[in-house]
Amino acid sequence: MIIIGELINGTRKRIKEAIASRDADYIADLATKQAEAGADFIDCNPGTVGEKEVQDMQWLVETIQAATDKPISFDSPNPEAIQRALATYSGTATPMINSVTLEPGSVEKMLPIVLEAKVNVVALALSEEGMPSQAGQREAVAYRLIDRLTAGGIQPEQIFVDPVIAPVSTAHEVGQHILQAIAAIRDYCPECHITCGLSNISFGLPNRQLMNRAFVGIAMQAGLDSAVMDPLDKQLMAHIIATEAIIGQDEFCMNYLQAHRAGKLEV
Amino acid sequence: MIIIGELINGTRKRIKEAIASRDADYIADLATKQAEAGADFIDCNPGTVGEKEVQDMQWLVETIQAATDKPISFDSPNPEAIQRALATYSGTATPMINSVTLEPGSVEKMLPIVLEAKVNVVALALSEEGMPSQAGQREAVAYRLIDRLTAGGIQPEQIFVDPVIAPVSTAHEVGQHILQAIAAIRDYCPECHITCGLSNISFGLPNRQLMNRAFVGIAMQAGLDSAVMDPLDKQLMAHIIATEAIIGQDEFCMNYLQAHRAGKLEV
Repeated sequence: MIIIGELINGTRKRIKEAIASRDADYIADLATKQAEAGADFIDCNPGTVGEKEVQDMQWLVETIQAATDKPISFDSPNPEAIQRALATYSGTATPMINSVTLEPGSVEKMLPIVLEAKVNVVALALSEEGMPSQAGQREAVAYRLIDRLTAGGIQPEQIFVDPVIAPVSTAHEVGQHILQAIAAIRDYCPECHITCGLSNISFGLPNRQLMNRAFVGIAMQAGLDSAVMDPLDKQLMAHIIATEAIIGQDEFCMNYLQAHRAGKLEV
Repeated sequence: MIIIGELINGTRKRIKEAIASRDADYIADLATKQAEAGADFIDCNPGTVGEKEVQDMQWLVETIQAATDKPISFDSPNPEAIQRALATYSGTATPMINSVTLEPGSVEKMLPIVLEAKVNVVALALSEEGMPSQAGQREAVAYRLIDRLTAGGIQPEQIFVDPVIAPVSTAHEVGQHILQAIAAIRDYCPECHITCGLSNISFGLPNRQLMNRAFVGIAMQAGLDSAVMDPLDKQLMAHIIATEAIIGQDEFCMNYLQAHRAGKLEV
């Protein structure tokens, strides 16, 4: 699993305060902790708007890359913020743009930035039709996005398709729609990555971490190989390691046994 | 999920002692606890052999049915022990025979008992070929067993197909072989139940409960709707409830929310 650590997100109260007060120690510590816990990318979402977001993005990228060598996922719908992030980023590992969609504004403004930067990109399966509500909608949008990105020179391995996770509390068929979309996208583009905003599945429910774990294992079997998630959730990380062994991605359970010896499964 | 509580099994040291000393209070308490925790059947495995097993089976059935109204799963390869269990059982709910296979001895001696008793039956996908090691073997044996049982007048709803769980530590493809078998059997006989000896998946590994949870959710999505398992494992029970919501078996998450209110998810 390619884990995109989600904790540096300005819509969270404590992060919002840290960004506003330029508390670099707090942000750096959170970046380091996520990297140590196994994050492959550090997501960076200022959670502000307009010119303020551009400045906050720059400060966050400077702060995170001073703390860790892990690549950063620039998380904003604001093209100016993404461009500032790309200009600020000095790491050697290829960063990520989170995200481009087929919504009118994104196609016109974000897609050209992605095609020029040729970095990793989260391709979020949203279009002019809005939130998917029918079976088959997610994958149909995803195919179009994959085609647009690869036609523009993005390698399939750089595309992280996000099938748009809706809360399972909203309709009992939501889970199957998402799982079918993941399987179909995996079939359509075997080289692409498939990611998701994992905790959206449990929105509005109690014991969200339990529901997140229940979803991620089944989704991995369907073809999910990445998630935007909390790498400090030890039970979730342990569940992912166990799932990799179950689905045949951990020969002789070597990684599982190593995690056990490191105390990572004692949760 | 149809849960077959596995704890009354004479191969476990404490149970062996309770059977040997005719400690009815201990057995009755374990039957009651499993029923209260959500077991739909109480498995009853004397773990002894020969005439001793026949007597132990009779005593166990008498003891369990005095403690709970839940139907009993008579768990023995010994035809005489199964016949004694059937003769002793006085419950109104239909019991279960665990198990019949296509191994030579079982076909000749156990199959006629099953066909005459017309109770629920675990159809364990073993044949004269022994333990399955190749993809496709489990489902091929399962189809033959289903055909034999239904031809003999057993209703599909009374058949609990067990695809034979091998430890995932033995070979990294084992998990996918089992999951493919479950999906194929579900397709072959939509009305059949599919069960398994859940904890076999984690045999030989540390943190077995974690591995059991990781497997059961994926298996449920593939078509598993029953398990021989420990209903007192609260994390496992919570994981199953969450999984039912994810895979579309819990409209509006009503059961999940009810379990939360009852404190069953706080694990």
